Amino acid sequence: MDLAAVVRRLEIDKLYADYAHCLDADRLEEWPDFFTEDCAYRVTSAENVEAGLPLGIIYATSKNMLVDRVMALRRANIYEPQRYRHLISGLRIEGSQGDALDVTANFLVVRTMQDGAMTLFAAGCYIDRIVRREAGWKFARKDVVLDSRRIDTLLALPL
Amino acid sequence: MDLAAVVRRLEIDKLYADYAHCLDADRLEEWPDFFTEDCAYRVTSAENVEAGLPLGIIYATSKNMLVDRVMALRRANIYEPQRYRHLISGLRIEGSQGDALDVTANFLVVRTMQDGAMTLFAAGCYIDRIVRREAGWKFARKDVVLDSRRIDTLLALPL
Amino acid sequence: MDLAAVVRRLEIDKLYADYAHCLDADRLEEWPDFFTEDCAYRVTSAENVEAGLPLGIIYATSKNMLVDRVMALRRANIYEPQRYRHLISGLRIEGSQGDALDVTANFLVVRTMQDGAMTLFAAGCYIDRIVRREAGWKFARKDVVLDSRRIDTLLALPL
Repeated sequence: MDLAAVVRRLEIDKLYADYAHCLDADRLEEWPDFFTEDCAYRVTSAENVEAGLPLGIIYATSKNMLVDRVMALRRANIYEPQRYRHLISGLRIEGSQGDALDVTANFLVVRTMQDGAMTLFAAGCYIDRIVRREAGWKFARKDVVLDSRRIDTLLALPL
Repeated sequence: MDLAAVVRRLEIDKLYADYAHCLDADRLEEWPDFFTEDCAYRVTSAENVEAGLPLGIIYATSKNMLVDRVMALRRANIYEPQRYRHLISGLRIEGSQGDALDVTANFLVVRTMQDGAMTLFAAGCYIDRIVRREAGWKFARKDVVLDSRRIDTLLALPL
Repeated sequence: MDLAAVVRRLEIDKLYADYAHCLDADRLEEWPDFFTEDCAYRVTSAENVEAGLPLGIIYATSKNMLVDRVMALRRANIYEPQRYRHLISGLRIEGSQGDALDVTANFLVVRTMQDGAMTLFAAGCYIDRIVRREAGWKFARKDVVLDSRRIDTLLALPL
């Protein structure tokens, strides 16, 4: 492992830290910018993944669809009383395909309601493919694999 | 990013790991040593921060005030039956001011009672300014921004 | 800190990420391979550690005993409806003894049941000794120190 590989590793750490920050700070309008134009974004369950089922619960096949999703969310929620906090750890570079990297990481999202009640909102792993663009690393594919198969309506939220 | 920048990044990781360890190991007497003499330490809510309210729930403007707080805590709690565990992730260097660095990170604190009951105790983010001293990186400012606005009395504890 | 030390640090990060992945992906048969042949694996409580009690709740003194444990687990559980997710953070290199390193880290394990119910399953810290072998870093000793002293029967699971 040379310095270039070390720097790349830290860049990828930063990608996930920035991604979590974007969501937790409710800057959803910036969320699609973490993806390539022709990205695939999917929320699915570990059960589906293990069964080899290709279609997830939520499926977007372009950055534009993510933009639409955020706009829909903003229209639906005049006031958002809860907060989300992402903890991401265990980041692994699984392999590479050309200039793309396959990366996985564990995540936990904790939700805090306005009255202070805290709940475990979601846990699972990301199975991602990232590519380097001029503006930095982007998600060409992001599979959000939930440990639960009961998918809450709130999972319309970006994870 | 050169080797010096990489090393600095790992040093900052270490600062937060050491900080979490100090609190979780109940070595509260060592906690003020993570701060500069003229530090500012504040516990506040995300709601306050967004409203631009300057005063937090807890406010200390020197390391000595932190020392006093620990002494008060030790006097108040003859026996402490619960344990806390900090998970810190998503560390980001947001910018620099002279030799100071602005750093943010997400945190989750889990509390375990003696009977084994576990609860989500606090979640939020740190908004910090750190400076390098001879003894290593210190917090010149630490804002503990809680996702909840209901502040438990136990938040007298260092976070 | 030179490049070799930086690389070593990232290798150790990777060891813990791989370890968490192995357990969360239910690849228990690969779990013993994270240990040396003459390893010591112990699950204990923080209370025991502070009292200086040497024997933990679960104690294995060789990799073979870990293999046996996994086989016993597989026989006992025909079907495993729950999922576990490890969040590991705050990794610290505490010191070294010859070519061995003493490493600690915080962990949180979240359990998700098939119906979607999520619970805090375990929190605590690892107190480990790792050594480098040809196949990479291995645990020569792993103490899983739980914050709780009420040990659930499910703690037969590798942590």
